[in-house]
Amino acid sequence: MLDTILNHKSIRKYKSDNISKDVLDKILEAGTRASTTGNMQVYSIVVSTEQSIKDKLWEFHFKQDMVKQAPLVMTFCADFNRFNKWCRQRNAEPGYDNFLSFYTASIDALLVAQNVALAAESFGLGICYLGTTTYMADEISNTLNLPKDVIPVTTIVMGYPDEEPELTDRLPLDAVVHYESYQDYSEERIDKLYEEKENSDLSKELIKVNDTDNLAQIFTQKRYTKKDNEFFSNKLKALLNKKWFEE
Amino acid sequence: MLDTILNHKSIRKYKSDNISKDVLDKILEAGTRASTTGNMQVYSIVVSTEQSIKDKLWEFHFKQDMVKQAPLVMTFCADFNRFNKWCRQRNAEPGYDNFLSFYTASIDALLVAQNVALAAESFGLGICYLGTTTYMADEISNTLNLPKDVIPVTTIVMGYPDEEPELTDRLPLDAVVHYESYQDYSEERIDKLYEEKENSDLSKELIKVNDTDNLAQIFTQKRYTKKDNEFFSNKLKALLNKKWFEE
Repeated sequence: MLDTILNHKSIRKYKSDNISKDVLDKILEAGTRASTTGNMQVYSIVVSTEQSIKDKLWEFHFKQDMVKQAPLVMTFCADFNRFNKWCRQRNAEPGYDNFLSFYTASIDALLVAQNVALAAESFGLGICYLGTTTYMADEISNTLNLPKDVIPVTTIVMGYPDEEPELTDRLPLDAVVHYESYQDYSEERIDKLYEEKENSDLSKELIKVNDTDNLAQIFTQKRYTKKDNEFFSNKLKALLNKKWFEE
Repeated sequence: MLDTILNHKSIRKYKSDNISKDVLDKILEAGTRASTTGNMQVYSIVVSTEQSIKDKLWEFHFKQDMVKQAPLVMTFCADFNRFNKWCRQRNAEPGYDNFLSFYTASIDALLVAQNVALAAESFGLGICYLGTTTYMADEISNTLNLPKDVIPVTTIVMGYPDEEPELTDRLPLDAVVHYESYQDYSEERIDKLYEEKENSDLSKELIKVNDTDNLAQIFTQKRYTKKDNEFFSNKLKALLNKKWFEE
């Protein structure tokens, strides 16, 4: 168990081998064992294997090749549609068209996704999360025919790995852990915690390629800019207004 | 690995035995191996063991006894504070005070939380998630001294189990899985998918105790009412406006 967790690497190149129905069912069952709020299971998993659907998803996931190439793409959704339908059939009036309930359903979907990711890895499969899911949630919703009260939260591509990358770097453990209560960071502490990351060969290479002064500027000026974040943020809020919140 | 996932049960009674520093560090390290967006690690984990802090948290987690009783309470937070400080020290202007970035940081925190939960269980520990975290996020923020750009997302209590509950029920696998694209539910299918859950002895007992017509009404009239959801939803949005979004 611990070995699987400690050896997690995102895989971006896959063999063409398919995943057997038996293995897939075990992985999905592992997903459903995750805790969910009130055991309501307000999530859904859309498993796409058809090339035509993967090709459409590829376009919306910023044309990352692995989406076309991996045998399987799983889209994890916050889903109150099923639960609301059940309630209405039982003369129980649901009140879940609010931000908290969307966030609750998102939590459900994400704990399930991580169970699925780890179960897949325990079978020798590789996975990669696609952060583009929230940027392009409306286009993905249309592609997968998601009804009202169903919003894509994250995506995993899955398949047998055709590469063996190194473990990626992490900040020192004490950068992300606080004891008893939050200990805010001094300037000196920030410098120290990011020192190793900033001075790695990988970071130096990225700074050269991106032509920035330092690693932080790659994030703010190239990869996750204020302008892009605000654009995609407004897009996601518009989708929620349309498909989740009460008009 | 798969066994740990398949045998997950929420534990609500704990022995007084403490968790050794060595085991705790391994569990936390397992947390940090989770994928995060752009490897930014925009989360923090607050590990509380002092009784006085646990007592305060107990109050805000709706006085659930396990919060006082468990040796350890871990609060997982969406955290752009550390990353923003780093950016500003590097002449890189962060643009993360928007909804998308909060949601991104929440995803980071939740994948880490599930790694921590499973790693703990692989050491024979028990855990329980506390959904009350988002309801009482402002009070918890104050208790744990969370600064601007840090919002509690979920909480895990952890310790050696002093009970051995049964596995809880789940909907059939095909209730939550869709192939290729989303297949919406007919009335008949909803009836069928919820049939086993509705007819279990546990559900019959709950309906009697709660004095409702059926199981769905327990959720809508007792446990997760529209009124409560909207109250706590507005509370969470107010906290985000105060501590995350640009004024």
